Amino acid sequence: MSTIDDLCRYRRETALLAATEALLGWDERTYLPPAAGEYRAEQMTLLAGMIHRRETDPRLGDWLGELAADSSMADPRSDTATIVRELKREYDKKVKLPQALVEELTRTSVLGQQAWVAARARNDFASFAPLLEKMVRLKREEADALGYAECRYDALLDSYEPGALTSQVTRVLSALRDQLVPLVAAIRDSGRQGDRELLSRRYPLAAQQEFGRRIAAAIGFSFERGRLDVTAHPFCTELGPHDVRITTRYDERHFPGAFFGVLHEAGHGLYEQGLRADQYGLPTGMHVSLGIHESQSRLWENLVGRSRAFWRYCYPLARAAFPEALSDVAEKDFFFAINDVRPSLIRVEADEATYNLHILIRFELEQALVEEELSVADLPSAWTEKYRHTLGLTPPNDADGVLQDIHWSAGLFGYFATYSLGNLYASQFFETADRELGGLAAQFERGDFNPLRNWLIERIHSQGRRFSAAELVQQVTGQPLSHVPLMRHLQGKFGELYGLSPANGARAAGG
Amino acid sequence: MSTIDDLCRYRRETALLAATEALLGWDERTYLPPAAGEYRAEQMTLLAGMIHRRETDPRLGDWLGELAADSSMADPRSDTATIVRELKREYDKKVKLPQALVEELTRTSVLGQQAWVAARARNDFASFAPLLEKMVRLKREEADALGYAECRYDALLDSYEPGALTSQVTRVLSALRDQLVPLVAAIRDSGRQGDRELLSRRYPLAAQQEFGRRIAAAIGFSFERGRLDVTAHPFCTELGPHDVRITTRYDERHFPGAFFGVLHEAGHGLYEQGLRADQYGLPTGMHVSLGIHESQSRLWENLVGRSRAFWRYCYPLARAAFPEALSDVAEKDFFFAINDVRPSLIRVEADEATYNLHILIRFELEQALVEEELSVADLPSAWTEKYRHTLGLTPPNDADGVLQDIHWSAGLFGYFATYSLGNLYASQFFETADRELGGLAAQFERGDFNPLRNWLIERIHSQGRRFSAAELVQQVTGQPLSHVPLMRHLQGKFGELYGLSPANGARAAGG
Repeated sequence: MSTIDDLCRYRRETALLAATEALLGWDERTYLPPAAGEYRAEQMTLLAGMIHRRETDPRLGDWLGELAADSSMADPRSDTATIVRELKREYDKKVKLPQALVEELTRTSVLGQQAWVAARARNDFASFAPLLEKMVRLKREEADALGYAECRYDALLDSYEPGALTSQVTRVLSALRDQLVPLVAAIRDSGRQGDRELLSRRYPLAAQQEFGRRIAAAIGFSFERGRLDVTAHPFCTELGPHDVRITTRYDERHFPGAFFGVLHEAGHGLYEQGLRADQYGLPTGMHVSLGIHESQSRLWENLVGRSRAFWRYCYPLARAAFPEALSDVAEKDFFFAINDVRPSLIRVEADEATYNLHILIRFELEQALVEEELSVADLPSAWTEKYRHTLGLTPPNDADGVLQDIHWSAGLFGYFATYSLGNLYASQFFETADRELGGLAAQFERGDFNPLRNWLIERIHSQGRRFSAAELVQQVTGQPLSHVPLMRHLQGKFGELYGLSPANGARAAGG
Repeated sequence: MSTIDDLCRYRRETALLAATEALLGWDERTYLPPAAGEYRAEQMTLLAGMIHRRETDPRLGDWLGELAADSSMADPRSDTATIVRELKREYDKKVKLPQALVEELTRTSVLGQQAWVAARARNDFASFAPLLEKMVRLKREEADALGYAECRYDALLDSYEPGALTSQVTRVLSALRDQLVPLVAAIRDSGRQGDRELLSRRYPLAAQQEFGRRIAAAIGFSFERGRLDVTAHPFCTELGPHDVRITTRYDERHFPGAFFGVLHEAGHGLYEQGLRADQYGLPTGMHVSLGIHESQSRLWENLVGRSRAFWRYCYPLARAAFPEALSDVAEKDFFFAINDVRPSLIRVEADEATYNLHILIRFELEQALVEEELSVADLPSAWTEKYRHTLGLTPPNDADGVLQDIHWSAGLFGYFATYSLGNLYASQFFETADRELGGLAAQFERGDFNPLRNWLIERIHSQGRRFSAAELVQQVTGQPLSHVPLMRHLQGKFGELYGLSPANGARAAGG
């Protein structure tokens, strides 16, 4: 046996355990009996410990060290080089973290999430503040242990978007904001509004379930290799090379929730189903980054699922599925309703345009916390000020303000940025696909999503971690990441919907 | 830390892994996507290997040896003594089996089941015979490796019914047969029949699901600590101290299948839910034997669920749930239909009375195979001869004859007996409970199953493996195992239904 074979076999066994832990987690969120939570937590802790020991085993370090020095690494895009480079990157990160810090982070995350739930329910930020302070302190320690190129926040960002630098992300997101804020203002001043009431008519649950499954299958999600179940908080998880499970939740009085939720999670699922199954558990068969993962969900949810061409195909099906709600509704009114832009206080309810402003606020605030430019005590007022300034809205309380997201309580600093990166990547990929595939709209209108899906598999999914996110964008689109494709998409769609003149659009874009 | 603490901690960790493996299995049979089977098998093999290594770890042998010699073992009914004795018994068995034999048995079982499926579909016993021959040879080797008191078959029986001897089981089952055959003949000659057509009217699936859940909850199955799902082959599995999952299958045109299936599996489930949760994974919190487990399912399915008193309570509910099928059906006719006795060829479709005759046939044939008194080549004709002699029916082919059960192909020799032992234990326990609780019928008529359930928890479930099956029967009922309570139950119920005179009954019983 050669060292690379040893390494791959070892890693595949780790993946078998990780997929087993993922099943424990999926089951916990779907079908676990109410009283069984405590024992399930013990099972997951045991598996997590076994996996962690395998991932930090010195044998692994020895193999990786030996292989990294090997000549077979000459081509950095080869499977072997990709496997060794990416496993070594992960290993080197993992062994830098002292065991005591890892355990303290885990404990604080559990306590932090509990405190956050209670604080949010009682609108009581002060009761959550001490744990958040501790978490911020631990995340700084984590960043210092990991090391970084330019700033502490880089180290945290790197956990979700490997190789990304805060300075680069800031540059793109700032350019995005500079054009987005005036676009949202122009929309507000247009005097037009979509009729959202159409979406809160009665959409029977059984019909929603069937419709969601049908459309997920239509865009290519394989139910031979996956499932769709119901959970309070939708997610996508992969439990093996041919086992991708997505979830959604249904509300009879809110059509877009489940429907775009299914498209979003199916987008994640298509990425997982498009990875090389024979490389399962190896970097050659793994997603690049959270941002790239999110790009696939946002692409199907927004670029496809909220496009006019998609509804040209889909609206007759929707009308047949929901006659009571839609028989008297024109396609263009439905289309406007699902694309209505309106500044709001809650991120997860935000529309396609304002969503990124919610992210920008969090991205800036968490950087300031980590870089010691903002204290936890001052966080609520900083939050309020940013919402007032950016979205023109003042949160009535902390529960609907700074306490609305679970992320910080769980120690997920550096995570929010990947949501907007996903939107940016998605638009840039989509523009390229549209050009190379000769116009996607005509294909969508006849319900043909195969060319786009196959293009994504070939260009993105099947690449695994051969490229970093930044390299992949350059490789696939011929350009570095930019705010321009996303803004072109938003200005085009909303300019038309809200009757903004191209001049207005240009002025607005100039800001 | 004392040695007993080390032992219990070690064992609890093994149980965490075993419960995880059980989840992998449950998911495989309920929700696994079609294409994911191969990877799931790899996961289960990995976990099974880890568990096997832990169970045969020499450290475990050292601890058990040390503890078995300890003075705290003086009281054989103490928790400590129970834990050490039962773990040592399992350990000593496991380490007696050569690794090569274990692997050969596993491989032959997988191949055997595949061959059995194909052979049954094509009604081709000859194609299955070579693998069955190999399996019988391996089971003899297994018996020789394990050792036995009186005959080889003892060693196999012991895997499912620890401590049981073939000679004892034969004595009880033969006495049962001697009274059962004339009872079945008297029923056949009575000229009466239940109207089974009532049970194949339309029973809508959704109503069956709700009704099954309702009755399972009524007899005490906790959905806080369990679930009911749908599978092709119903089963009960426990995934943790508060996580017992049962399954059933629904057929719109066959009411008893799902309904008595749910009662049967809920009976198994009540046993699991009645074990001491704080002793989970230890012999003090485990079921005694397969026979005792089966006694709990048969008790709820037959002694309760097919009793007149139960339907006094349940029939109005059934009529409300299935108005289309039952509005014109009298309770007594429905009761007769679900209790109709009729000799048949297929074990799993057999009624309460003839079921045990199917088991007797298998019990005798598999003994003869293991003891080298019957060759595999002669098995089909021996099967046919026994069915003709015992049930008065001749199988039209091997698919509905000797090939109908999966057990032998999977190496489950010694297993069938536990089904009839379950029926015997159930009747003997039930008689005692009825006496001690002052008449259960009146309680059932008003839908009160708590006294019986609590009695079972106290006398049986909470005892764990403190007693062997034989000891438990003696302890709970004051008598050794006997065919008399089961025959008293069958003669009482069917004597009344089929109008057999007590004299007839006595003559029949005398045989």
